[in-house]
Amino acid sequence: MLKKEEISTWFQGLQDSICEQLKAVDNSTIIQDLWERPEGGGGRSRVLNGRIIEKGGVNFSAVEGPLPDKIAAALKVDDAEFFATGVSIVLHPLNPHVPIIHMNVRYFELDSGIWWFGGGIDLTPHYIDKDQAAFFHQTLKDVCDKADKSFYPKFKTWADDYFYIRHRKETRGIGGIFFDRLGNNHHLSKDELWIFVQNVGETFAPLYLKLAQEKHELPFTEEHKNWQAMRRGRYVEFNLVWDKGTKFGLDTDGRTESILMSMPPVANWRYNYIPKPNSAEAATQALLKKGIDWATKANT
Amino acid sequence: MLKKEEISTWFQGLQDSICEQLKAVDNSTIIQDLWERPEGGGGRSRVLNGRIIEKGGVNFSAVEGPLPDKIAAALKVDDAEFFATGVSIVLHPLNPHVPIIHMNVRYFELDSGIWWFGGGIDLTPHYIDKDQAAFFHQTLKDVCDKADKSFYPKFKTWADDYFYIRHRKETRGIGGIFFDRLGNNHHLSKDELWIFVQNVGETFAPLYLKLAQEKHELPFTEEHKNWQAMRRGRYVEFNLVWDKGTKFGLDTDGRTESILMSMPPVANWRYNYIPKPNSAEAATQALLKKGIDWATKANT
Repeated sequence: MLKKEEISTWFQGLQDSICEQLKAVDNSTIIQDLWERPEGGGGRSRVLNGRIIEKGGVNFSAVEGPLPDKIAAALKVDDAEFFATGVSIVLHPLNPHVPIIHMNVRYFELDSGIWWFGGGIDLTPHYIDKDQAAFFHQTLKDVCDKADKSFYPKFKTWADDYFYIRHRKETRGIGGIFFDRLGNNHHLSKDELWIFVQNVGETFAPLYLKLAQEKHELPFTEEHKNWQAMRRGRYVEFNLVWDKGTKFGLDTDGRTESILMSMPPVANWRYNYIPKPNSAEAATQALLKKGIDWATKANT
Repeated sequence: MLKKEEISTWFQGLQDSICEQLKAVDNSTIIQDLWERPEGGGGRSRVLNGRIIEKGGVNFSAVEGPLPDKIAAALKVDDAEFFATGVSIVLHPLNPHVPIIHMNVRYFELDSGIWWFGGGIDLTPHYIDKDQAAFFHQTLKDVCDKADKSFYPKFKTWADDYFYIRHRKETRGIGGIFFDRLGNNHHLSKDELWIFVQNVGETFAPLYLKLAQEKHELPFTEEHKNWQAMRRGRYVEFNLVWDKGTKFGLDTDGRTESILMSMPPVANWRYNYIPKPNSAEAATQALLKKGIDWATKANT
């Protein structure tokens, strides 16, 4: 039976591996902070800055202890001991033609025997490139299909619904996959689910580096940077207003600097900004909606 | 008996008067948007940009209709018709030595006869100047004292508690006054409360212009601008994570662009930034806490 220590050790290795792969291309400076959680466990927060990544956070954590009241209430369980471990990443690139990416893989268990995996990868291009979008979604579909043919359609829709900025009536980007509570009652075994989660984790770095390398040397103007800063503003809005993980972390006295590593280096807000008709910005804006079949390029 | 139409008409005049006073000093360009709420009522949103104010929002609204379910649940009333009107302002100055300011005055009533006033003014200096802080608080104390000697201590503490960024364990700025639900059962009459609210509204423009004019010609460096952008990031965090009005508006399909006029033009986030010891930034950071008796300068 797969043990929690095996999972957290593997996640820690994933953090190392992703940092190495990113650094090899990005020539990143990486600052690491080790932190401990007073109630049990801790983590390794790493901030990257290089020639492609303006600000990136690659976090590993493995925390444990008595289940916080708010979670116990949400899960409808009485007092229990919990264990949670995962890797969480957001990369904000310097070049506006390179997309923002987010990845998370996580495992949660209670001492009562309840456990589940969760995670996902989603992409937020400042400028949507349909070829990159198709490649991105097809890659995620391939990873899903290897585990279960039902996964991609389900997790793709879940991402559309989750990464939705309700007050803007727009998606955060082109989505990707999102899944949660793959646990005890799943038709796949724990070992099978674990292989799927590992595959998601391992897909991240090569996938992003391919997308980034195709774009990061493209020239950009001040207008591109302004639009990037506005899209980053929307990223901030999503994360602070709607993202359950962020809200939960801030609400339960998580480590603020690690939680808010997802914040962009610079963001801006202009009142009621509407992109010029027929501009690249307007084209992207028009595609920030749910239900686009990105993997099948003809449908975008 | 004071009628709701009298209140909203006066608030609309206050918006005009504040815009005129700001424009006379700031030479602001003002863009106005009129908007209507499908369920009833509407507003006038105005965005200012001038030589002192980089981005300012001065909003008036008067909305009405069936009470939204979420408010009804929060107020524990069954279906009712509501009316709400107010003026809401956030000004982000260009010069980091000039503080950010926020003001709100509002009135709410239900057709069942329940009514109340709410509002406040609070100041967020990027660099705290104790003389300005003392003047700011003393001015608010004078306005409060005219209505009731108990108001300032109570509303000052309320502002300390309300404008608190819990996940940072710091206040948004130096506070000010905050009050809510001054209504039916108050020991002051409706007319007396209304005079108090009007006085708060009228205090705003001359108070801010005095503070701004003392500072806006001071030279500033890139370091000052960086710190300003970080403090603006904290402003974003407070408004999107903790501010009840913002959350409520976004949650109940309010007009997003009007609600988010409080967002700064540019904000930034640096991982785990700690000001240099003995710097002006560190001095300000050390003062971002509750319970400082700003009006009595000796106690700061």
